Amino acid sequence: MTDLQAIVEEIHASLSPRRGEGKVADYIPQLAHVDPQKFGMAVVTVDGETHLAGDAEEAFSIQSISKVFTLTLALGKHGESIWKRVGREPSGSAFNSIVQLEYEGGIPRNPFINAGAIAITDLVLAGHTPKEAIGEIVRFLRYLADEDDIIVDQAVARSEQATGFRNFALANFLRSFGKLDHAAELVLGVYFHQCALAMSCRQLARAGLFLANSGTNPLTGHRVVSHMRARRINALMLTCGHYDGSGDFAYRVGLPGKSGVGGGILAVAPGKASVAVWSPGLNENGNSLIGSLALEMLAARTGWSVFGA
Amino acid sequence: MTDLQAIVEEIHASLSPRRGEGKVADYIPQLAHVDPQKFGMAVVTVDGETHLAGDAEEAFSIQSISKVFTLTLALGKHGESIWKRVGREPSGSAFNSIVQLEYEGGIPRNPFINAGAIAITDLVLAGHTPKEAIGEIVRFLRYLADEDDIIVDQAVARSEQATGFRNFALANFLRSFGKLDHAAELVLGVYFHQCALAMSCRQLARAGLFLANSGTNPLTGHRVVSHMRARRINALMLTCGHYDGSGDFAYRVGLPGKSGVGGGILAVAPGKASVAVWSPGLNENGNSLIGSLALEMLAARTGWSVFGA
Amino acid sequence: MTDLQAIVEEIHASLSPRRGEGKVADYIPQLAHVDPQKFGMAVVTVDGETHLAGDAEEAFSIQSISKVFTLTLALGKHGESIWKRVGREPSGSAFNSIVQLEYEGGIPRNPFINAGAIAITDLVLAGHTPKEAIGEIVRFLRYLADEDDIIVDQAVARSEQATGFRNFALANFLRSFGKLDHAAELVLGVYFHQCALAMSCRQLARAGLFLANSGTNPLTGHRVVSHMRARRINALMLTCGHYDGSGDFAYRVGLPGKSGVGGGILAVAPGKASVAVWSPGLNENGNSLIGSLALEMLAARTGWSVFGA
Amino acid sequence: MTDLQAIVEEIHASLSPRRGEGKVADYIPQLAHVDPQKFGMAVVTVDGETHLAGDAEEAFSIQSISKVFTLTLALGKHGESIWKRVGREPSGSAFNSIVQLEYEGGIPRNPFINAGAIAITDLVLAGHTPKEAIGEIVRFLRYLADEDDIIVDQAVARSEQATGFRNFALANFLRSFGKLDHAAELVLGVYFHQCALAMSCRQLARAGLFLANSGTNPLTGHRVVSHMRARRINALMLTCGHYDGSGDFAYRVGLPGKSGVGGGILAVAPGKASVAVWSPGLNENGNSLIGSLALEMLAARTGWSVFGA
Repeated sequence: MTDLQAIVEEIHASLSPRRGEGKVADYIPQLAHVDPQKFGMAVVTVDGETHLAGDAEEAFSIQSISKVFTLTLALGKHGESIWKRVGREPSGSAFNSIVQLEYEGGIPRNPFINAGAIAITDLVLAGHTPKEAIGEIVRFLRYLADEDDIIVDQAVARSEQATGFRNFALANFLRSFGKLDHAAELVLGVYFHQCALAMSCRQLARAGLFLANSGTNPLTGHRVVSHMRARRINALMLTCGHYDGSGDFAYRVGLPGKSGVGGGILAVAPGKASVAVWSPGLNENGNSLIGSLALEMLAARTGWSVFGA
Repeated sequence: MTDLQAIVEEIHASLSPRRGEGKVADYIPQLAHVDPQKFGMAVVTVDGETHLAGDAEEAFSIQSISKVFTLTLALGKHGESIWKRVGREPSGSAFNSIVQLEYEGGIPRNPFINAGAIAITDLVLAGHTPKEAIGEIVRFLRYLADEDDIIVDQAVARSEQATGFRNFALANFLRSFGKLDHAAELVLGVYFHQCALAMSCRQLARAGLFLANSGTNPLTGHRVVSHMRARRINALMLTCGHYDGSGDFAYRVGLPGKSGVGGGILAVAPGKASVAVWSPGLNENGNSLIGSLALEMLAARTGWSVFGA
Repeated sequence: MTDLQAIVEEIHASLSPRRGEGKVADYIPQLAHVDPQKFGMAVVTVDGETHLAGDAEEAFSIQSISKVFTLTLALGKHGESIWKRVGREPSGSAFNSIVQLEYEGGIPRNPFINAGAIAITDLVLAGHTPKEAIGEIVRFLRYLADEDDIIVDQAVARSEQATGFRNFALANFLRSFGKLDHAAELVLGVYFHQCALAMSCRQLARAGLFLANSGTNPLTGHRVVSHMRARRINALMLTCGHYDGSGDFAYRVGLPGKSGVGGGILAVAPGKASVAVWSPGLNENGNSLIGSLALEMLAARTGWSVFGA
Repeated sequence: MTDLQAIVEEIHASLSPRRGEGKVADYIPQLAHVDPQKFGMAVVTVDGETHLAGDAEEAFSIQSISKVFTLTLALGKHGESIWKRVGREPSGSAFNSIVQLEYEGGIPRNPFINAGAIAITDLVLAGHTPKEAIGEIVRFLRYLADEDDIIVDQAVARSEQATGFRNFALANFLRSFGKLDHAAELVLGVYFHQCALAMSCRQLARAGLFLANSGTNPLTGHRVVSHMRARRINALMLTCGHYDGSGDFAYRVGLPGKSGVGGGILAVAPGKASVAVWSPGLNENGNSLIGSLALEMLAARTGWSVFGA
């Protein structure tokens, strides 16, 4: 057993007694019913080693983590022109984000708040039917993770569709500013499916590995994005990846990351590894409570902070 | 001539024709009268090499860059308890910051917006007269830079004192929430002096070098802060160091940095070097326009991004 | 010719040269195509006299003036319980209103801003299909004005339906807070039709006459609402009837009133008369520019201010 | 005993059991120590009759009610040009008011929120020392009420001076926008004294009587302001006189009024009477709880609403 495997297992063991802390997302029944005791960790190094602990092979709803991948797709399709539709600045509180959206004329603060991700999905949809766009996103994830059994959880997608009134509000708000090219219904049809992607920690860590390796997946050799673009996506994850807890995550963990309301977090240690954690209980900022702690411990034990040796 | 010296000189030469672009801060005459053609760069590596270009030896008003150093002092005095008085999250626009201050009960978003820096200065003032506190700050900068000729520009300090109504508003606002221990006049007496510190690019880069070297100044051997604290200060600079342009700076430059309205920027390449640039013309977010570009070019040429090789 | 007739004609004549000033609403083509030279006035006294000037018999899109009548209907159906869904406070700027909506948990500030009127329409819809609710609203206006040729302009309604993204945003926003009982599409189906009601100044003044006469239409003898309720509706019109120009209208005109983006204003002089004016050019607050001036002159000439003899 | 005297006494008797409800202002000790059982009413008609009940002869701190009188003074000195410095629109919540102040470039929403009243006091101060301005305000109140024993409670004034940090913040904020001609300290020196005026219900009702009688005090024959100006001040009191409870007060009471945090309310029934009530317990909007109810009952019993017979 390597040192890293031991570290992952020790962290998992030391935090396991705290499983169940935090608040499981309950705005749709499909998320509320998830077992709050679940806790998985996966570390995939750029050298190709995989270290797992706990429920690392069980699929969960990746939710907002998907925004990293649709951003990557949109950058591939449209290049830096996407920044006409969305900003690159942290957003502050959820309260603040809609104020800013009004104040700044329908340009969401960044691609990782809901309004921004909806604007990005609108760009991914360009030239496609919603069904085609969903297919493209699923295929992209399978390509990144090099696994074929990644699917959309249709029950979650339907549930979001039936109750996602705030997202309908945001999409119509964007459209009222002329900042959405497609009808709100079409864009959200895609958006709700991307959020409903079900992946395991292992799959997620593999899918994000290109970001730790200058844009190229070292397992497959696929060059996903350029060096520069990988750095830039990491920068966005660091400044904007955890809603109004982004500054705190940078302070405590020191790695680019993106959380989802399903309890998952993807973190990137450039040049070292891609890490995925999953524990459904959320902290006050809507990020996985145990997951954040696990990443903080991992960064401390490995010295993987981007901010210094 | 080393490669790095050549890079610094080439960047300086290529940007020199654009000197004068941007808008020089004019809220006090002492800043408005600065020659907009000034442009200096200093890179000090953790190996002890110094590379200069342009007006790198001329002192300028460091303004908000001082907030990095008073934060370091406050952390030394009070430890992590300072986070009861100030947050660690990016602030969004100036407009937004006062909304947040009201909304969040007098806790400024982070130590690098004015309200937050005033709260930090209040903590530095604890147990001191304003004169003593100013003396302590000046001595700290001399110790960090290992140079004795760092002084406060008294004309700048007096001018801020006479016209800094918004800072008086912010300080009284904090006090109305019970979040300032000393009278607004006393705290601002110190605050205006720290902002009026005059330093050259070379001095500034030397003073910030401990942040690039895990907390220890490699030139003097002084251990200023712990590894962990150096990383954390870098994290704060990255997420909050450039007002509402912090996300953009992270995206384009990819290094922790702190700008000042006098046209200076201090940037940190962990494990590599400390960099200071100075050019008075500011961009729309209030950060040095030429200075930002110089750092973007330096990061591209050296590969010093914290977000990937 | 009575004195009042002379006053109305003189005001019309003195303002006619300024017709065309202001900005005609253009967010839907059907409103943008209205002739900006149109200018009508109608004064109907509680004694039953009618005084007309200009284009007082030509139907125009009453738009937000309809909110007074649907509020009256909702109060009749649900009584004071409607205030669980909507407030009674002025809203400030449009910018502010969405901030407040978020800040106050989905309770719109008052029934006369769009979000509030949508909440009121949701209550009017209770127990009905949208078609039935639209029918009820049209019949109510015919009953109030005692005229059968009041209709909905279907082209305007369709146009609002096709482009009213901000209203879709607001309705979904309300629904996300659990403050809308019906689907956004159903509520807005009714809302867009009520706004598309076409009425002349004469019809509108007659329809509003019950508010000037303690709740009873003196022309028909119909008791529409109680004394108390008539006063209260007048109070809401005075404090909230002109968006962020309500205070200014109270200051200059001194009468309860409600404006619409089609250029109409209904004003009430309690115990005296009901007044309707129409001129499509709008001032900076979205209220009829010539219409506001006409009412200011009428109040000055007749002494009809509610604020003193 | 007249009918009106009976009405006043009955209202006082019926509400007396509820004395002590609400929350006494406690931001300065001098207000916190007021007996919460106090409850006075005074009605002075334009015919010169005075009807008192309860503690109507006991002086209390009029606080923000003073803003009506300094507004009257400022209008007398500067005319309608004062509206360059302050708006005429309701402000919404206290939270909102500072946002608006920032958003609208240092123009307070109206003369009755603190920022607006400070701006008005700055205008009253023009050409005077603070001591002279305070003297002028006191003399003006004595002239209006035709009584010489109206004084400033110096203990209250000193206490506000020592703890009014938020007002110092607002004044400096105005000054940072260039919207205050004098130093914050000077303006607030006057402002805190005007708020500390001590008057009885009887004195206050007499002082406000000119507003109920088209600008002329019927007791003394003094023409204080023109017809038009009296109406306009009444309009401002109706739309803005009760902070974020202004709409509710208009809805329930239907009279122009101005409240103070000391528990007093001045209300005006145009053509009828001036009314002052005092009960220290405040409702959630910071207006006297019992006082508001007393005025609601008085309006219902007398039919004195401005919104209809």
